[in-house]
This record gives sequence, structure tokens and C-alpha cells, in this order.
Amino acid sequence: MPETCATGDALGRVLAEPVLAPRTLPPFDVSAMDGYALRAADLARAGNDAPVALPVAFEVAAGARPDRPLEPGAVARIFTGAPLPPGADAVVRQEDVVREGDRARFTIPASPGEHVREAGEDVRAGETVLEPGARLGPGPLGMLASLGRTVVAVHRRPRDANLYGGDELIEPDGDPAGGRIDASNSYSIAAQCREAGAEPTYLGIARDTPADLERVLRAGLWADVLVSSAGVSVGDRDYVRPVLEQLGCELVFWGVEIKPGFPLVFGRFAERGPLVFGLPGNPVSAMVTFEEFVRPALRRLAGHRALYRPRIEAVLGETLRKGAGRLHLVRVRLERKDGRVVARSTGSQSSGVLRSMALAHGLLVFPAAATTLAEGTPVQVRVLDEEFLAAEDAGL
Amino acid sequence: MPETCATGDALGRVLAEPVLAPRTLPPFDVSAMDGYALRAADLARAGNDAPVALPVAFEVAAGARPDRPLEPGAVARIFTGAPLPPGADAVVRQEDVVREGDRARFTIPASPGEHVREAGEDVRAGETVLEPGARLGPGPLGMLASLGRTVVAVHRRPRDANLYGGDELIEPDGDPAGGRIDASNSYSIAAQCREAGAEPTYLGIARDTPADLERVLRAGLWADVLVSSAGVSVGDRDYVRPVLEQLGCELVFWGVEIKPGFPLVFGRFAERGPLVFGLPGNPVSAMVTFEEFVRPALRRLAGHRALYRPRIEAVLGETLRKGAGRLHLVRVRLERKDGRVVARSTGSQSSGVLRSMALAHGLLVFPAAATTLAEGTPVQVRVLDEEFLAAEDAGL
Repeated sequence: MPETCATGDALGRVLAEPVLAPRTLPPFDVSAMDGYALRAADLARAGNDAPVALPVAFEVAAGARPDRPLEPGAVARIFTGAPLPPGADAVVRQEDVVREGDRARFTIPASPGEHVREAGEDVRAGETVLEPGARLGPGPLGMLASLGRTVVAVHRRPRDANLYGGDELIEPDGDPAGGRIDASNSYSIAAQCREAGAEPTYLGIARDTPADLERVLRAGLWADVLVSSAGVSVGDRDYVRPVLEQLGCELVFWGVEIKPGFPLVFGRFAERGPLVFGLPGNPVSAMVTFEEFVRPALRRLAGHRALYRPRIEAVLGETLRKGAGRLHLVRVRLERKDGRVVARSTGSQSSGVLRSMALAHGLLVFPAAATTLAEGTPVQVRVLDEEFLAAEDAGL
Repeated sequence: MPETCATGDALGRVLAEPVLAPRTLPPFDVSAMDGYALRAADLARAGNDAPVALPVAFEVAAGARPDRPLEPGAVARIFTGAPLPPGADAVVRQEDVVREGDRARFTIPASPGEHVREAGEDVRAGETVLEPGARLGPGPLGMLASLGRTVVAVHRRPRDANLYGGDELIEPDGDPAGGRIDASNSYSIAAQCREAGAEPTYLGIARDTPADLERVLRAGLWADVLVSSAGVSVGDRDYVRPVLEQLGCELVFWGVEIKPGFPLVFGRFAERGPLVFGLPGNPVSAMVTFEEFVRPALRRLAGHRALYRPRIEAVLGETLRKGAGRLHLVRVRLERKDGRVVARSTGSQSSGVLRSMALAHGLLVFPAAATTLAEGTPVQVRVLDEEFLAAEDAGL
């Protein structure tokens, strides 16, 4: 779904149109240096022993209009970025010229095109300069600006609405007296949405009744993607699935053989309505299933082609064990050592230990059937903290 | 320079304080399941052949206060996230229990701690949970929220002020009649600043007079970093260096042996004042020197430790040649092919060809002394378009 966006606000957006050059760049032959514009043929015999002195007929300022022609045997004072006068085909740098009153003395020859940026060197009118799907980083944005394109068609950012369920929850700025627990998911999920290129809206905490859950879910039906956490398991208070069905949502799957995150539910509406992800309520399970399922969906909606986190090759710094059966997504910390990247578990992988996620640089896939991954094994880690990829030196 | 920031707005910022847990998490033993809280010892002999039926003394709702003790031989109905009543040490999942009126029948034993998240399993009050220098991604933000920290100390974003010089320039929304050229640098440099974590302010175009340049430079002296482009070479209109000196700026270096970007100037003020980078005016030279010199400075000011772009291993898809002398920063396009990354020049490397930068995935360092890099040579490429690092599959 494309929308228009001011080029100055489009950093990181995905282009939704082919960009054709409306004009030729540079629009005419331009001097690349401060110096003298001339006909190269006039300096054919110039040398240290055969200086050629030519009259300076006029001056071309940057920003001037290139209308006055240069007669054969004459030169024009010219500045970087200024258009070459008709007739001139080369520029000699001022460092190589001796100015003598209204004449300039040359002791080196020039070749046609020297220190000239030819019209169309960068782009020609009508050429496609950017393809749909391109990420608008500084380079493409500069290109658009140089073509006078101050508005551009981009993929709309998907709108995400999220909620969190549970009577035990209070907002993090609330009073924890009485044994209630801070609803951290609204913060982590909003951040995950933003990292995925989506615009999050927080719907609040739903209390543990079908009526309140329905009230909050309904409030998010305008979104492109609706993300709830908690209430998807088999407990007495796990109302997410029945309430979604009541709202007309088709449940596509429930339960995935991964740990953490087993009870994830995914649904969609036949007609109009958001994609719905019912994540587990546990903060770690919610974040991991968001990474695995919601993030790729949001990136697809945002127009990206590559939907997944960068992967990095690492070696295991310790032996990992688990039971056979489910695929585990192990939160790992990465460290660069002797030219390698070493991955180690962030400690207790209990899904209650939010710190395991707070300290994680990445997720390691521990396959379902495996029970041991020995220290020293080469592994691929999905990098969650992309800052880890930044280099510590310039690599010169 | 630290400042405080709402946790909800802190995505991507760099932590400027050690975060100590103000409370223990979970604050008390909590049920990890919907089920029954009990003393494990009471089920020591339970089995399929020896069911144990115990009275359900009371119910503990999520969000309730854990004050009523559980007598030996009794159980309490409990829900995920609810505090264990004093005396209880295990939870049996409701799927494993048969409820019979006011009694519950158990056919499996329980071990102490089973389905219980112990007080302090995540963090203990006083523990350091995040170190200064951590990037605040979704995980750390969730951790802060779970500790009730709605405000956090972060490194201040460096403030950048930028300007562009040249009589040939007009703003991209202006009228190009009369042969004037769009000032694209304001767009590309602002985007580069934002990518580096800085807040850009655009000061406008300075005309080619010392007075106008001084006026615009003065307007940016409040910034942390002042970035100009154009006017740093040896031409008659290259006033940046003399005007900076007149303003009291100490010029630290001028001229770097790289291409593009040779005439770069760097200065600073003895007392108060911004770091000053005078970039070349050519859009490609300006962007490349920003990458090489300004970006690492901005990232250092923003609190980052690793200051440089991620590097990726690639093989050259074509032979590159140049003269010996200067180090070249070659704009390359990257392509994944047969498990390798292939790097190819974006075409004309003339510094006038902005398209070479608009299409570039990265910069390849072509060392000063080298004159040929043969097709097939393994090279390291600094990745400018970090989107290129995203994976196309989940890697399962």
C-alpha cells in the first residue's frame, strides 16, 4: 500500500515507485574546477618551452546561464559548477595557468573533456534511477533531491495495535503494592514494532474477563496487525481464542513446536480486519514469538524483501543441552575473540527470566531433534542487537 | 553528556547509567501455570494407582496479595502469575488434576519448585541489570519497564548543524531555470546524521562571499558538530578555511589522501564550540567523507563504542584499476550468489556521479599503493545499506 512522503522524512522507508529522471544531470557541461574554459585545440602545441597566451574574453560565474559563446582563440574564466560556454570543450585548472592582465598563459596542453562534467554524466532525462523496493538511505535521498523530487511514493508503514492481558498487571508507572507486576510487554513490543518499521499503538491492559478482552481487541480492529499477549494457553482465563472467534476472526493455527512460545495463535479476518497474533503472556515468550512470526509479517507489509534478521557465524563457547522434541530459541550473548565470534547462553533460559532477553545479542536455533550442541560447534546466530555488527575499527 | 529520556522513547539510545534493580523480580514466588498450589510433600506417594484427594482451601487470583497461609494437607486454586500462598512450594497444572467439588484429586507426585517462578529468579533488588553503554533495544527496554523504570539516563544525541555553499545552488523545491543545480547535500547529510544517531539542523545555502559564509557558519556555532560542504579547495571562492579561522576555529588538518574527498578540512575551537568538518561540495565526495570522518565522531558523541559500519566479506566480481597514490573508496553494489557475496563497482566512479552513491550497498577500500584488484579477489566491504545484511529466510 503506497503513500506519498516528503523526501526529507523518508529515511528508511521503502520506495513504491520506479523513479525516472525528470531532467538530465548535470543539465549541461559543467566545469569540475576553478580555472579557464577553452577549446583544447587551441593548446595543441602548448608546453613549457612553448607557452600559449590567450585573451580572457569573459567570466562565467556558478549559477550563470550558458549563453555567450566562446570564440576560437579565446578563453573564459570559470568556476566549479559553472556551465561551459558554447564552443569550449575543456577546462585548465587555475593552478596550471599564469594570469597576465587580460590574458592567461598556458604551458601544458589540454585534452577535450578535461575537468568537464559532461551533460548527462550522472543521469539522462527519462532514465530509471531507482527501482521500487529500494530502501531510502542517504544515497537515494540525495539522488531524489538532486532531481528536484521533494515528494516520493513509499510503502505505508504497517500500523500495529497491541494489548496485554492479565489481572496481575499494572502499568510500569503504577503502584506495585499488593503484589502486582509491571506490564513490560507494552514497552518491548512497541520497540519491536518500531524496529520492524511499523507504527505501534498501545491499547492497554485487558482484564481477565471475556467482556474486557473483547472491548480491548475491538479497539484494535482498525490496525493492519493486532498483537495481544497472554491468554492463549489452556487455562480457565485464556479467552483470546474464543473471543477472537466471536469477533469473526478465523484462527489459522494455534501452538507451535518451539520453546519459548508454544501457545502462539495466528488468525485473520475473511473480509476486512487485521492479521492477529496472540502471543504468550510471558515477556520472554512474547518477545521471541514476535521476532519469529510478527516481525517478518510487518516487514513484508512495509515492503521489505529480506524479512529476517541478519545472521552471523559463531562458535559455541559452552555446551548446550535440552530434551528432544521442541526447537529451542536460545538467547545468546556474542563476543568477538581472536577473530571469531563466540556465542554463550545468557544464563537461565527459563521463559520467566526477562534478563535473558535484555542481555541477548541474538537467538540461536537449537534444532528440535538435537539434545546436545557441544562447545566449539560452529553455529549461526540471528542478530537481534544489530549494533553488535558495527565494526570497532575503520578496517584500513 | 547524559540526559534523561522516557523509557518509551528510548529505542536505539545508549544507556548512560548502570541500571540497578530497585526491586526483586518476581517479587515473590509466582505460579507459572494455572493449577493448584500445594506442598510437594503432600503428594509424595501420589500415583495412578494411589490417587490423593486434597481439600481446595481457597483460590489465589492473579494480582492478589500473598498473605493467607496454606495449611498442610490442603491445596489452593491458583492462576498464572499469582503469588504462591505461604506454605506452598509447588504447583500442579490443572491438566493433571481432577476437580471433585471442593476437593482436587492428584495422580502424579510433585517436586518442590515445580511450575513455580521463584522470587528473584529474574533479578534481585540491588543487582546491576544493565551496564552503561548498552544499546536500548526492545529487550533492555522491557527489562526497564518490568522494574518500573519509566525514565532512564541516556547519552544525549549529538546536535549537528549543516550548510552547503555555492552560488550555483537552489533548494530542491526551487526553480531550476537559469542553469542552477539542486542542493541535494542537505537531504543526504541530514539522513546520514540521523543514521549516525544525531539530530540534524539545516542552516541553508551560503552564497559565495566570505560575509555570507560567515553569517551561516555563525548560525551553527551552538551545535556539537558543524558540517559544511563546498568551499574547502584552493579556488578563489573557497572561503571556508579563512572564515573558520576568523571565527576562532583551530584548523587541525586539511587534505586527506583519499579519493573522493581530498580537500576535507577538520577544525575545533579551543574553548566552546563545535567540531567542524568542512566537506568537499561534490555530493559524492561529501557523502563519502561524512561516512569516513563525521559518522565515527557523531557515534562517539552519542555514546557508541563500535564507531564503524559493519563489514562483510565479498569477492570482486570484476577487476578494478586505478593509479597509485591515493586510497580510493569505491562505491560497490553487492549481490548474494551461490553462498558468496559478489561486489561490483556501481559504474562510473567520477565524484560527479551521484548515482554511484545512490545505488551503492557499500564502500570498498582500494589501498593507496595498489593499482589493480583482480576479479575474484576476496575483499571486505563496509556496508552502507545495512538492509543488505537482512536475511532472506529464517535459517531453520
